[in-house]
Amino acid sequence: MREINTNPPAGTRDFLPATVKFREKIFATIKRVFESFGFLPLETPAFERIDVLTGKYGEEGEKLIYKILKRGEQAATGEADLALRYDLTIPMSRTIARYKGELPSIFKRYQMQPVWRAERPGRGRFREFYQCDVDTSGTTSLLADAEILLALSEAIGAVGLRKFVIRLNSRKVLKGLLNAYKVPEALERSILTALDKLDKVGSEGVVKELRERGLSGEAVNRIVADMNESGDVSIRKRLKDSRVGQEGLSEVDGVIRLTAPLLKEGKIEFSPFLARGLDYYTGPIFEIFADGLAGSIASGGRYDDLIGMFAGKSIPACGGSLGIERIAMILEEQNPNKEVAPPVQVMVVVWDETFAEDALQFSEEARRAGISAEVYLGGGNIGRQISSASKRGIPYCIVYGPDEKKRKEVILKDLRTGEQKSILRSDVARSLLDEISKSKDI
Amino acid sequence: MREINTNPPAGTRDFLPATVKFREKIFATIKRVFESFGFLPLETPAFERIDVLTGKYGEEGEKLIYKILKRGEQAATGEADLALRYDLTIPMSRTIARYKGELPSIFKRYQMQPVWRAERPGRGRFREFYQCDVDTSGTTSLLADAEILLALSEAIGAVGLRKFVIRLNSRKVLKGLLNAYKVPEALERSILTALDKLDKVGSEGVVKELRERGLSGEAVNRIVADMNESGDVSIRKRLKDSRVGQEGLSEVDGVIRLTAPLLKEGKIEFSPFLARGLDYYTGPIFEIFADGLAGSIASGGRYDDLIGMFAGKSIPACGGSLGIERIAMILEEQNPNKEVAPPVQVMVVVWDETFAEDALQFSEEARRAGISAEVYLGGGNIGRQISSASKRGIPYCIVYGPDEKKRKEVILKDLRTGEQKSILRSDVARSLLDEISKSKDI
Repeated sequence: MREINTNPPAGTRDFLPATVKFREKIFATIKRVFESFGFLPLETPAFERIDVLTGKYGEEGEKLIYKILKRGEQAATGEADLALRYDLTIPMSRTIARYKGELPSIFKRYQMQPVWRAERPGRGRFREFYQCDVDTSGTTSLLADAEILLALSEAIGAVGLRKFVIRLNSRKVLKGLLNAYKVPEALERSILTALDKLDKVGSEGVVKELRERGLSGEAVNRIVADMNESGDVSIRKRLKDSRVGQEGLSEVDGVIRLTAPLLKEGKIEFSPFLARGLDYYTGPIFEIFADGLAGSIASGGRYDDLIGMFAGKSIPACGGSLGIERIAMILEEQNPNKEVAPPVQVMVVVWDETFAEDALQFSEEARRAGISAEVYLGGGNIGRQISSASKRGIPYCIVYGPDEKKRKEVILKDLRTGEQKSILRSDVARSLLDEISKSKDI
Repeated sequence: MREINTNPPAGTRDFLPATVKFREKIFATIKRVFESFGFLPLETPAFERIDVLTGKYGEEGEKLIYKILKRGEQAATGEADLALRYDLTIPMSRTIARYKGELPSIFKRYQMQPVWRAERPGRGRFREFYQCDVDTSGTTSLLADAEILLALSEAIGAVGLRKFVIRLNSRKVLKGLLNAYKVPEALERSILTALDKLDKVGSEGVVKELRERGLSGEAVNRIVADMNESGDVSIRKRLKDSRVGQEGLSEVDGVIRLTAPLLKEGKIEFSPFLARGLDYYTGPIFEIFADGLAGSIASGGRYDDLIGMFAGKSIPACGGSLGIERIAMILEEQNPNKEVAPPVQVMVVVWDETFAEDALQFSEEARRAGISAEVYLGGGNIGRQISSASKRGIPYCIVYGPDEKKRKEVILKDLRTGEQKSILRSDVARSLLDEISKSKDI
């Protein structure tokens, strides 16, 4: 037999049972929170027609899209007609456009599905990873933006990351600032990209970037002065005469007013240079940072024009994405001895082949009483069977051999205490239920 | 704005909230059953290196594999290096080989993930669909085969399809029969394919196929004689002198002996011409048919040599696949008025913008008491807000306006009865809990 590479493809993971269970618990917690806010689940296909995705993620993003070769006779052309989901926002936008007649005009959905990006794999960076989004479409109300922040905050708290900061800005604040700094319109996008790096490279790094990107010394100086100012007095002054800037400030103030009183251990603050990479944002934007962790654990904003690209009419929307892979990684590191996948409650020893039917029968009786159970499939002597069950953390085992058969009894053994007792064969399920409820009382 | 095609790709589906919820319930029921048998969840990536999949699904299957174009500079070559999961058995086999040091030597896993096949789409036939497999590796014991059948039967019963028939055979029975019919070895695979169509084309159709595939008239006559015989006496006689045939019969008898006494409303029967398409089966094979439905709802068998292709050593295994898309379709047809996705329990009316903070506050208080709640995001007059909540089936709403503010009260309205009462503002959560528990008593 030829041995072949059995690793999963680079950047992807196999999830063994204990990890699946660990992740399922996190995902279920988050879903429960989102549903308590009235968000409903949506699922879309793993791939989309390629034209649905192209032109949406910028030049860099586009390169990372996995494209699917045409099938049949057209495979030889080397052309692609489909592409794997790159995020959840575009498929949601297509879906809202497609079903706008059936869905409520204000639609609150969450979506938790894998996406695929051909990134260079690295620590915590995968080519297949789950995204977890909440979005509200159909309203321009800032209440929707605030509700997104509250739902994300509640979810973050529910999985156990209690302390965090929401940094909030508005694209309109940025637009107002760019105008006030007299950044030429052709440079705007490039300058936003530079500002967005403040966290990573510090204000000196940003200055260097701004110069490299061709911004005049005077504009750079104004930006740096504002950046180094603590508080937002200078920013508010800078935006005094900018209509769009004032609109942005009122969005920021409105969202903070609605959100701040309801945050438990988290807080929210105005962050006037937060830019967010994606082009499609139109209003409030945010990132959420957990105490002690570099990089954000959630982010999002308002994008009032995106769904219109699919719907043929403008449908405003806002939303956010929770970094659940990041969160799962943090929680796994905090729980290095995470439980192995839970074993069954009862293992039935198989005395020998002639007792196989009886063993299956006992396991079935246990299951019918709501007790998970399996028969030992590996054969071999009884001691080995019992110690294998014990090693796996199975609390009870049942032994039934020739002696027990004669007496119409079975042996019920508690593998944690070593205690065992004979019970009537006809009494297996009830005795198990008794034992289990007793051990829960302790 | 340009309108573009917003349908999901051909053969794939968007799942709106009510459908997600409906399917989740079915999936959860099946998982619960599998876990009660001690099967544990496994998840593998959506794509595999292409060489992991090629050569496993036969010529026809191979054509249906979705291949992923190389990225970056190599995209222009038109070559593929990855391919989408085509089933769950091959990824599981790779995984067991990869982690054989960590996994228990007898490994019982279930897996419920989408697979992709470029089939011609049709009623109930999709290009993206969920598979749901249970498999046990590491043992040749017939107990494992029986346990797979019991777990699948239990799952089928648990989702509500009570009456079904398990048709059982062994590849060794088929091998013995082919020998007894003196089918030339070169024709064996082709003849098996013809026999497998008995259900679809009847015995006359099979005869025609057998002739077309070049089988001698004498062999065809023997086969037809056995096919038209009721019971299995003639088959058993035919296999009298075949060692492999006798082994097969003993497998079939053994599995029936273990399984039959434990089936509730299902039954199990020997089906000597059942062949199953896939090449990799080596022992017992089966298909499960639900009463009144054409086509099987589950199928599987023993494949002792497949994992060895990856592991470099032989690892026996058996398993089965539950047709959950089929089952979901049947259940949806039986429940045409399936519930819409459950709404929240409370909607908080937003009197006007100045009351937005209070509204959010009330919704938050409700959620903290474990009651799902949302604020009305659409604005507009109070009557419209209330009737919108009522239409969505939300049982309670909260109204808080200038009058209520003055009195430090809120109005709690039961939207099903129209009854309403004033409660203390500070008492919202407790009053809601009272109301909800009262309405459950009724």
